[in-house]
Parts: sequence; C-alpha cells; structure tokens
Amino acid sequence: MFATPRQTTPRQMRLGLFLLSTGHHIAGWRHPGAQADAPVNIRHYAEMARLAEAARFDMLFLADNNCVTQTDWPAVRRTSRTNIFEPIALLSALAMVTERIGLVATGSTTYAEPYHTARGFGTLDHLSGGRAGWNIVTTSNANEAWNFGRESHLAHADRYRRAAEFIEVTKGLWDSFADDAFERDAESGIYFDAAKLDVLNHRGEEFAVRGPLNLARPPQGHPVLVQAGGSEAGRDLAARLAEVIFSVSQTLPEAQAFYADIKARLTAAGRDADAVKVLPGFFPVVGRTRAEAEDQMAELQKLLHPDVGLSLLSFLTGGFDFSKFDVDGPLPELPDTDVGKARLKVIADLARRENLTIRQLYERIAVSRGHHMIVGSHTEVADRMQEWFEGRGADGFNVMPPTFPAGFRAFTDLVVPELQRRGLFRTEYSGATLREHLGLARPERASRGTPALPSN
Amino acid sequence: MFATPRQTTPRQMRLGLFLLSTGHHIAGWRHPGAQADAPVNIRHYAEMARLAEAARFDMLFLADNNCVTQTDWPAVRRTSRTNIFEPIALLSALAMVTERIGLVATGSTTYAEPYHTARGFGTLDHLSGGRAGWNIVTTSNANEAWNFGRESHLAHADRYRRAAEFIEVTKGLWDSFADDAFERDAESGIYFDAAKLDVLNHRGEEFAVRGPLNLARPPQGHPVLVQAGGSEAGRDLAARLAEVIFSVSQTLPEAQAFYADIKARLTAAGRDADAVKVLPGFFPVVGRTRAEAEDQMAELQKLLHPDVGLSLLSFLTGGFDFSKFDVDGPLPELPDTDVGKARLKVIADLARRENLTIRQLYERIAVSRGHHMIVGSHTEVADRMQEWFEGRGADGFNVMPPTFPAGFRAFTDLVVPELQRRGLFRTEYSGATLREHLGLARPERASRGTPALPSN
Repeated sequence: MFATPRQTTPRQMRLGLFLLSTGHHIAGWRHPGAQADAPVNIRHYAEMARLAEAARFDMLFLADNNCVTQTDWPAVRRTSRTNIFEPIALLSALAMVTERIGLVATGSTTYAEPYHTARGFGTLDHLSGGRAGWNIVTTSNANEAWNFGRESHLAHADRYRRAAEFIEVTKGLWDSFADDAFERDAESGIYFDAAKLDVLNHRGEEFAVRGPLNLARPPQGHPVLVQAGGSEAGRDLAARLAEVIFSVSQTLPEAQAFYADIKARLTAAGRDADAVKVLPGFFPVVGRTRAEAEDQMAELQKLLHPDVGLSLLSFLTGGFDFSKFDVDGPLPELPDTDVGKARLKVIADLARRENLTIRQLYERIAVSRGHHMIVGSHTEVADRMQEWFEGRGADGFNVMPPTFPAGFRAFTDLVVPELQRRGLFRTEYSGATLREHLGLARPERASRGTPALPSN
Repeated sequence: MFATPRQTTPRQMRLGLFLLSTGHHIAGWRHPGAQADAPVNIRHYAEMARLAEAARFDMLFLADNNCVTQTDWPAVRRTSRTNIFEPIALLSALAMVTERIGLVATGSTTYAEPYHTARGFGTLDHLSGGRAGWNIVTTSNANEAWNFGRESHLAHADRYRRAAEFIEVTKGLWDSFADDAFERDAESGIYFDAAKLDVLNHRGEEFAVRGPLNLARPPQGHPVLVQAGGSEAGRDLAARLAEVIFSVSQTLPEAQAFYADIKARLTAAGRDADAVKVLPGFFPVVGRTRAEAEDQMAELQKLLHPDVGLSLLSFLTGGFDFSKFDVDGPLPELPDTDVGKARLKVIADLARRENLTIRQLYERIAVSRGHHMIVGSHTEVADRMQEWFEGRGADGFNVMPPTFPAGFRAFTDLVVPELQRRGLFRTEYSGATLREHLGLARPERASRGTPALPSN
C-alpha cells in the first residue's frame, strides 16, 4: 500500500488543490492545455484527483453554487463556468479512484437544511474512510435565492447568524451515535446500544431538528470544517468553529496580518493556535524558466475577451456597473455591498496600490479572482511559497492552476519536487484521514439531546 | 468492452436489485450469510453492485429516508435499519466501479427543493454516462417532518400536489440547456450558444424557481422516473409521469389487476402502454432444492425477535398499537391512515385471505414488508417469475434478497442462469444507458421559460 511514516520536519506545508473544471484562468478553456469539456467529464476529474494524490496533496477542494452565478449572457456564454457537478456526488465518485487524498466540498448554510448537509458530508466521510471536509459558506450570490423561492437574498448578518446555528445542529447530528454504539452482536440480536444514541431535540431560532441522524458517527468524528469568509463575521465564525481557512491575500504583509489576526482570535477563543490551518489561495503559472511562464501567461491573456473580464470584475464587486466609466481610466469608488466583503477590499486595495486602470484590474482579476498570483520558474514559485510559509503568512496553500490538466501538471512535475527537496512538503502520506494529513485532532463526541434508551 | 447486441426474444424481463444493506429479512443481519456492518461498508456495496452487473441486472435500486424511520428503540436497536448512506452519494461512488448497470435512488419531493434534486440526479446521470434513475416518493413517514422544522407531516393529498409540481420544475431545470448548446469553440471563444439556454422562470403554487440549472442536459435527457405509490393519487401520478413502477402485490391476480389498471391509465393519458415498466417487489429465498430453501427460511425466522416483528407491523400500518390485542388472535380492523395506503391494503388483505394471527402476520411481513415472497428451488423461483411475467402481472421484478451477499448470490448463481436459459432475461447488455436497458425513449427537450439570448 503506502510506505510507513517517516520522520518529517517540524512544520510542513499543507496543500489543497482547488479543482475547477477547465482551470482558474477564466479564458483557460480556450488554451490547448485545458480539457474544454471538463465540467461534465468525470474521467478528467478522476485523472486530476489521481495526479493530486500522486503528488501527496492534502486535499481536493471544490467550490459550489446552486445557481448560474453570472447571468450577463453575452459574456457568460464565453466561459466554462455555468456547469458544476453537485460536489458531494463528484467527491463520492472520486473517493473510489483515490485512497488517501482529502475531499473537501463547499456547502452553503443559507439554502440548505442541516439534516441533508449532515447526511451528505457524513456519507462522504464514511465512503472515503475519513477523508471528507466541509467548506462552509453562506452564499454571496443573490441568484441562488431565486432558485429557492425567495424574493431576495438573506442579508450578510442574518446569513452568519443562521450559519452558526446550522453548524451546531450539523455537529449535533453527526454525534447522534457514539463511536462505539454498534455492537452488531448476532448472538444477542442487539445491533446497537440505544443508550449510546442521542436524540438531538434541537429547537433554536432558525431550526427545529429532532434527530437522530440516520448514520453512524463519521470516521473522523466530524468531517474537517473549512471556512473562507474574511469579513469580521467570517473571521469570528472561523475562530470559533473552523479548522482550515481558505483565505484571500494579494501580498505577504496582507497575508501576515490576516494570519496573525486569526491566530490571536483563536487564542482569545481558548483554542490552540495550531487548531486552524490558514491556506491562502495561490495562483501559479509555472515554467522551467521565468520566460516560459511569462509566455504561457501572455498566451492565456490573449484569450481573454474584454466582455468576460469586465463581467467578472462587475460580479466580484457585487454587481457594480462599470459601463459608465472609461475602461482605461482609474477604478471609481466602490460602494460597500453585502457580498464577498473580504475579496472586495482586496480588489480595491490592489487597484489603488498598483494604480491600475479598470482594464488592467480586470486583466489581473480574470486570472486569480483576487488571489495571489505568481508567474515564474518552478524555483521562483517554490521560493515565494517558502517565503509566505516561513514568514507566517500561511500554513500552506490552496493551489489554483490556470488550466487543467497542463497548468496543474506543471505544478506537480516541477514545483512539488522542489518543495519536497527543501523538506517543505511530504514525500509520503503518513496518515489515512484528512485530519491526520492536516494534523488536526479528532473531535470528541459531545453529549447533546437525550439518549434513546437509558443505559443499563 | 462488451459484446455486440444479439437478437433477443420480443419481450424480456427487467430486473432491478433492491439493494438494502444487510438484506430484506429484518433479522437477516444476524445470519452468517449477511455482512453485519453493510450499512457503512462501501466495499460491501461495491461488491454487490459488481455482482448485479455481472448478472446483467437493469438497475440497482436504493430506498431512502431522511430520518430514522422507526423510533421504538427497544425493537429498533435489534435492527440494522438505522443507518442509510445518502443514496446519490452512494450511487455516485458505485458508478465508478461499474460500467453498465442502472443506478436508481429514492428522492422525496416533500422535504427537498427541486433545484437540489435536479442537480443531484443530473450529476449522477453525467457521472455514470446515462445510468441514473429517480424513484420519486412523497415520504410516508412523519418522523421526517420533525427533522425539517415542521410540527407535522404534510397530508397525503398535499404531498401529491406538491410532488406533481416538483417533478415539472425538475424536468424544466434538466431542460435548461439544449443537448447541443455546448460548442466549446476555442477559436471564436464561444463556449455555449445562449439561445440554446432557457431561463425557467417558474412561478407556481408551491415553488418559485428561476433557473437555469447550472448543469448540461443529462445524457439520458432526464434520468428515468420511477414511482412506487399504489394509492389512487399515486397511480394517477404514475400514469402521467412515471417510466418504471415499483409495485407491491401479494398474489398474481392482485398483480394482474394492478398491471391492467396502470396500462389502461397510460392509454387514457395518451401514453404508450409500453412506456411504463411495472416491477413488483419480489422476495426470493432460493435453494438448490425446495428443502434447502425452506431450511434457510426457517433459520432466518428463528432469528426474528418478537419485538422486532411487532414493531415493524405497527410501523407499516401507520403506527397502529397492537399491544392491546392478543398476538395469537386475529388482526383487528385497521383504521385508514395517511401513510403507505397501497401497502396497508395489501397487508390487511393478506391477513384476511390466509386467516393469519397477528404473530403469523408479522412473521410474514418481517420478511418482505408486504411484497410477494417465494421459498423454493431455483427452478421453482424461475417458474413463478415466468408465470407473473407471461401472465401480465409484471414487466419484470425488483428483487429483494433476504441477505446480502449470500441471499443475492444464490439468486445470481442459480436463478439468473435459469431465466437466461429460458430466454426470459438478457445474457449481455445491448445498450449503454438505463433507458436503453429498459427500452424507454429518450425524452425530447421541452421549451420552457425564455432563452437567455435570442438566436441570431
């Protein structure tokens, strides 16, 4: 199977692969290095999952939306983004073609029910032998509301209030059965000890859920809880509940400030500073030389249609209408919106810091959607990762290749071995579960509700 | 890969495998022929799926509930029924270890949203290359209501009204993109033709769903629609919308009456009589001889604890309290309830026809939950199937083995070859999709809503 664990350096990077169909460059599907039909091609996904596992990544990471997020059709028809497999189904399939890599799906707390969410992620954790993670989002796209019978999207504060209760209920459901509830004793005929089953009986502000969950406790206790919100409410939630944070930072000082803030909040919340891994999104365009990488980037940028760039910029700034402004002029003042607050700030700061025109800004944003980008040789890319990692801007990275498969293959072929040579990244898995890969404790079962039967 | 299609007899059986963890006999988990930890054992499910595919079954069939259905804990702790993997996740995993067999999951329309359901089954259809089916239920268990914030369960008539609209919305969402919408033309930069994308804009009594679905049209157009309700409302819905009916009949005359009724309703609804396949549940205990089968059955019945039998009977009769009645006396008059009407009638008729005591009744019910049972040699089992099939009581069967793996293996080892020898069942798959296995037409896309962009 796999080699026995070897002694590793005290601190190593965690790497997620942010797996997004054709790739993270929005025009990447047009590039010969991409698989154009990737969004509906399960063989493609299986190949990428196996490649990530062979490179010893901690996890695959899937975004999600319950809608077509952008509806500016003249631009949207130029993108591959309208098709998204339901992520728990996709990861359940990928669980069967991999053995070790973690499987993290995004799930919204706003247009879902805790019982469904607890079942879905609980099932994935069982199917995969303890490799599931739940990236908790509150949904920042109002288009989703209209697919669920609502006139308007829930406000930011309401979404976070709902999220906190949603997570508590979900954890309670996962804890329905004790880890050792199932005796399965053919002789006595007792399948499980009902004193080790709690009926949740939750009645809160947002939810009334009786329970129990119709599923044994997941192998990891709870799937790993991932969180991405960088707003005040998002950071607060993360400090209380998250175990991995997928963050967005353009520069090392930004990343360091975020990292320090989160670790301080953890300490304040009475949690170990190491109980949460901070993984900024990281968009690498990799070549054997910098020139090769720059050529590749130039090729990709040539494929970007202005409609697509402007449409994405508008989308990421909460629907701001840029049509009244000169595309080669400066970025106007952006109003505060109710969506993606942390990313909005990163984008506005980037434009101001580098004095970008609207066009220059969307050319940057179309690439990495506000995440840190590097175009360089594999050693330059490894240098940058090392700098952020050792400089306490990151515990690792959520890697966002410009194209799949080619852009990712460049990373696994060139950058991963370089990181391994430097002792910054594992060469073998030492654990079996995602919690073990990440160095996270398995949560104890909390007693909630009432036992189905009193113990004897 | 697979052999080319051979000329088949004009009419052959369709076979589903009703895959239920440890098996359909409620005490079966105690039997050495069962895998006691089956509910949470993905390797077990994969093995059963491969076995069914090797036997050329049309499909796997999974039941589902969003609750622990029975909460009579002293009895329930004696069963393996409390744990159910979320079925779309499970079938997505099984899609990766099989190539041809259809994958049918139960999904309720009562505590779900059409957008989620359309995505889930649409994704499964894509992942599996056109092998998905949706068994539509309205949920007959009030315990589910309490897991979704409701005080009480929706009434029977309300559930069916909601179901009809739910299905229409789901089909509309699957039809969002035309089959040929995706050009993916790298040269022009157009990924899809927005004139071939409809925005649903559904506003009905129960649902407001804007759409479009964020997924290409499923390979089968729509996953196969399966339906199990035998009540008046259920039959009406089936005649209008279903493509497979999973029915419950104790005797051939009952089965023939149901079959004739459904085919007549189809004709009345303007549909082809062959557009719906009627598959009764079929519980076989198979031996090389009848004596061997009877021994096996006796072994299973010895494992049945009275608490479990009585609890199941109470559950299947809508919570009727039998404790006031003599267990060795006759079945009292059962009141009409709002749950599982068709099965309730089958059970009451069975008790009256065979003059069963309460104990005798639960001993029968614990086995097959009201479905037809046969205990016999493989030729006797094949005879019975042939009789029902040729007598127009069935287009095939949903096979419910008493135990997995042993009870199912006896069926595939002994009965399937016998059916094949008689020309009643395929020896090779001739098609690739579930629709092709079943001989069902691929639905044309209906134009609904408005195109995202006018055509040029």
